[in-house]
Amino acid sequence: MKTYRLAMIGFGNVGQGLAQILRDHGGDIARRHGAQFQIVAVSDLLKGSVYDPEGLDPAELLASIEAVGNLDRVEALHRDWDALRTIKESNAGIILEMSYTDLHTGEPALTHIRQALQNGRHVVTTNKGPTALHFPELKRLADENNVEFGVEGTVMSGTPALRVGMELLGGAGIRRVQGILNGTTNYILTQMESGASYEEALAEAQQKGYAEADPTGDVEGHDAAGKVVILANLLMDLPLTMADVECQGITGLTPGDISAAQEAGERWKLIGLVERREDGTGQLAATARVRPTRLPLSHPLASIGGATNAITYTTDLLGDVTLIGPGAGRIETGYALLGDMLAINRK
Amino acid sequence: MKTYRLAMIGFGNVGQGLAQILRDHGGDIARRHGAQFQIVAVSDLLKGSVYDPEGLDPAELLASIEAVGNLDRVEALHRDWDALRTIKESNAGIILEMSYTDLHTGEPALTHIRQALQNGRHVVTTNKGPTALHFPELKRLADENNVEFGVEGTVMSGTPALRVGMELLGGAGIRRVQGILNGTTNYILTQMESGASYEEALAEAQQKGYAEADPTGDVEGHDAAGKVVILANLLMDLPLTMADVECQGITGLTPGDISAAQEAGERWKLIGLVERREDGTGQLAATARVRPTRLPLSHPLASIGGATNAITYTTDLLGDVTLIGPGAGRIETGYALLGDMLAINRK
Repeated sequence: MKTYRLAMIGFGNVGQGLAQILRDHGGDIARRHGAQFQIVAVSDLLKGSVYDPEGLDPAELLASIEAVGNLDRVEALHRDWDALRTIKESNAGIILEMSYTDLHTGEPALTHIRQALQNGRHVVTTNKGPTALHFPELKRLADENNVEFGVEGTVMSGTPALRVGMELLGGAGIRRVQGILNGTTNYILTQMESGASYEEALAEAQQKGYAEADPTGDVEGHDAAGKVVILANLLMDLPLTMADVECQGITGLTPGDISAAQEAGERWKLIGLVERREDGTGQLAATARVRPTRLPLSHPLASIGGATNAITYTTDLLGDVTLIGPGAGRIETGYALLGDMLAINRK
Repeated sequence: MKTYRLAMIGFGNVGQGLAQILRDHGGDIARRHGAQFQIVAVSDLLKGSVYDPEGLDPAELLASIEAVGNLDRVEALHRDWDALRTIKESNAGIILEMSYTDLHTGEPALTHIRQALQNGRHVVTTNKGPTALHFPELKRLADENNVEFGVEGTVMSGTPALRVGMELLGGAGIRRVQGILNGTTNYILTQMESGASYEEALAEAQQKGYAEADPTGDVEGHDAAGKVVILANLLMDLPLTMADVECQGITGLTPGDISAAQEAGERWKLIGLVERREDGTGQLAATARVRPTRLPLSHPLASIGGATNAITYTTDLLGDVTLIGPGAGRIETGYALLGDMLAINRK
């Protein structure tokens, strides 16, 4: 039985989701995969930090959050280590980077990930910021240090959209990827089709926890654009950045637009797309965009309602293959981390 | 660069599809995966047999079929070796078993596969017969001989339905799998919705090459039942056999049934399903069936038209994940073989 020690940077929904999976299924996972995952450190700006090289009990971490909203009730050898000290000085072999997403600078996660890789730790992250902005650099850094850099959770939460594309469809020649990559906007569009105004639908999405207080990143399409960049880099060897993605959100869509589509047997979806093509000179070129798009009801992506996500890979050998699954959720995203951790174990 | 020598048992559509992939993309595959796949033997009851330990050119194999319908124009050191001699005496490390499917006895493929595994050769097959009837035995035999037994092509052709379930969703706890697993019947049902009678739709499916001259295996649900057995064994550790699957085909559906569903906003689909559940005593029990089922149009499987296949995995940690893709086709099924061959290379 191999044991992997984990340090969690950030202990919000996703970190708690993974702790819950390890609490409830850790024994099962060990039996089935021969790998034991042991949390040794948690460092969170708001909830506090705890470190015990001998291991922390996930049940105790969750109970403390439940009882007092922070980690004060957890017994630990060391407290208040910040993220960088945890990364550098703890005995964790895998750093789980789950701090907040910044799609402009990638910080503070970018610094955390660089530090961890340089120190020879595996990194698994759900953070779109550093992944969308600096994937090629971080992957190279991981390779140089002989460690893994897992990012499955950055697109479609635990639905294995990246691994299906990289590992299972890689040989089929992916020439286009398009999908519904943002659950919040898809939920809003679905509600607007049932007659809600944009404002009502947004308020409902916020109430359900799908949309943040400041919904700009979702509704203006930036979140989906970050995922398009990740898909381009990981699945199609296209070294695109955020600036290469033509981006339009859903804030301009009116109830009139929605009903006009309905009358035509169509449906608006916020579609993220990346396509590779040869230009006239044999050079590789790419189109990348996020844009509200009217799809006929018969289109496989048209029937995807609510917060569900979906992605269609267009390949040379298999034609279209579509994957549909959850795009958010604490357990669902926690599962994405577990998937990357199990992949480290397989190697 | 590692070289794998291949012996093809059967050279129908699927074998020719793989030969085409190797002819057109062999160089690419070698560059990307560091593995060279070289056909050394083909043994086909109707088209003849050729063996050259130094390798056969896939372009030459295909050109001979194109020109004279058999392998007579191929230069080879040995001719007319039958399947068993090819398996035992050729220098192939991977046996590709693509002879015809028999869902009652599994023969002759079953004998071929047993022989190959006993001789320490990897086996990759698209043949549902031996897989549905004897998977646990054949897997054990492969393990004992330290070789692989790849069966991705038995369900949904090259759409990686088995690998997604085994490798990517295994940790999520699959408790139910259901899907549209037979393209022929789905094509017939789609045509009947457009007003064709069952007989007309079947004739059209036969003309397009989707249905065989004797369509019984497809339309009575046996083909889908074989796939349910494979899914149960591989994805859910349920050692079911064909006899455990309650099976009903589409031959009883009338135009009246079709239009009654349409009027109710529903659609008939031939659904294969396997579900595991605890019975009262904590014992594991299973439901497995193939049955025409009326789905509401909003159901993700309802929008799957024509010869496309789809599968929904219901999991403990991720809820529903659905995969949609081709269910047949020579290149598509050839890609399934390639996927298993690349997996052998990764190990």
